[in-house]
Amino acid sequence: MRIGILGTGHVGPTLADAWHAAGHEVVIGSRKPEEAEPGSGRVPIVSNEEAVAGADVVVNATPGTASLALLTSVGAPALAGKVLLDVAVGFTEDGNLSHLGESLGEELQRSFPGTPVVKTLCTVDRLVMVDPGSLEGPSTVFLSGDDPAAKATVRGLLHDLGWTDDALLDLGGIATARGQEHFSLLFIGIAGGTGTYRFGLRVVMPTERTAADTH
Amino acid sequence: MRIGILGTGHVGPTLADAWHAAGHEVVIGSRKPEEAEPGSGRVPIVSNEEAVAGADVVVNATPGTASLALLTSVGAPALAGKVLLDVAVGFTEDGNLSHLGESLGEELQRSFPGTPVVKTLCTVDRLVMVDPGSLEGPSTVFLSGDDPAAKATVRGLLHDLGWTDDALLDLGGIATARGQEHFSLLFIGIAGGTGTYRFGLRVVMPTERTAADTH
Repeated sequence: MRIGILGTGHVGPTLADAWHAAGHEVVIGSRKPEEAEPGSGRVPIVSNEEAVAGADVVVNATPGTASLALLTSVGAPALAGKVLLDVAVGFTEDGNLSHLGESLGEELQRSFPGTPVVKTLCTVDRLVMVDPGSLEGPSTVFLSGDDPAAKATVRGLLHDLGWTDDALLDLGGIATARGQEHFSLLFIGIAGGTGTYRFGLRVVMPTERTAADTH
Repeated sequence: MRIGILGTGHVGPTLADAWHAAGHEVVIGSRKPEEAEPGSGRVPIVSNEEAVAGADVVVNATPGTASLALLTSVGAPALAGKVLLDVAVGFTEDGNLSHLGESLGEELQRSFPGTPVVKTLCTVDRLVMVDPGSLEGPSTVFLSGDDPAAKATVRGLLHDLGWTDDALLDLGGIATARGQEHFSLLFIGIAGGTGTYRFGLRVVMPTERTAADTH
């Protein structure tokens, strides 16, 4: 699969190397590719426009407060028909969420109706994103999106990172992205309580289902 | 311990029965005790004022949008020196959080500075609160609060519900209550994805800690 990753921070290049290692054709997009850090050097850095133009799947790993403007500058026509795998969360300068009460995922889906958006991976650190087996037990990541085919594509890419089918929980439509994004505030609390960002979250089910479960 | 539980909905009586069974002296407070449902009948229903007056620990299991007004009507002098174990989350009529970007826990602590507030248990359903062993593996609950002695008291009460020390994660001060409360949006998504409210959340740690964990 041809993957264009937008975002030259910590998350984008980490995902880029992992999907490159899994055999995909990956590029990283940058506003100023000639000035960008070369990263591992295994994945070419091109312009954002070029990264999107050649991609089947566009990955939004830009800062969540900048994502809409950046994708708008690339343009809805260029993005049309491509899957947008969105891992971003927006924070304000005082450490709060920029999309309180709703979500960046929903905002992007509204802004680019011709591009199916799938929100995922934003509940774990980049080191866990690409190495879920480094944790002491199985953990869960979530999918939110309106388009079943786009979700199936993203599932495949998550498998390539080491997330088994059992680890993937489909929350429903893109509106459920707000749950994933708002978890960021608990993520920060857990990181403070444990002293590391490198942890997973496991949804633990009841041993037996009863009628009371769905009260 | 003498526990006064405020809230006659689903959560309050469930906690009341569990702590009563663990040997504590428990009452449930109600605005109109003579009209309240008797629940299991094992725990007396009294006025809110009476429930607070006789308690070492006051449990806030009222709707989060009503909690401040109710506790204000009871009064800061009546609450002074007691531990306030706060399990409430406020929702608006459209299903969003009433305390977006901050938390009910912080609001209560600001409003009643003489009463140490400990936020906990609000990340799990009432059936899980009182029976963590009914899940297929260990799960985690969180504590947020500024007062170490109050947290130690609450830890003891969580042990009595079946939460082992390993299951309790101290997030830090009461400001971290916002993480617990904002998780409610992901809780709703997970309930939608799994078809049950009865699930736990396990924080899964790395098998080995490295310097990169604290980047």
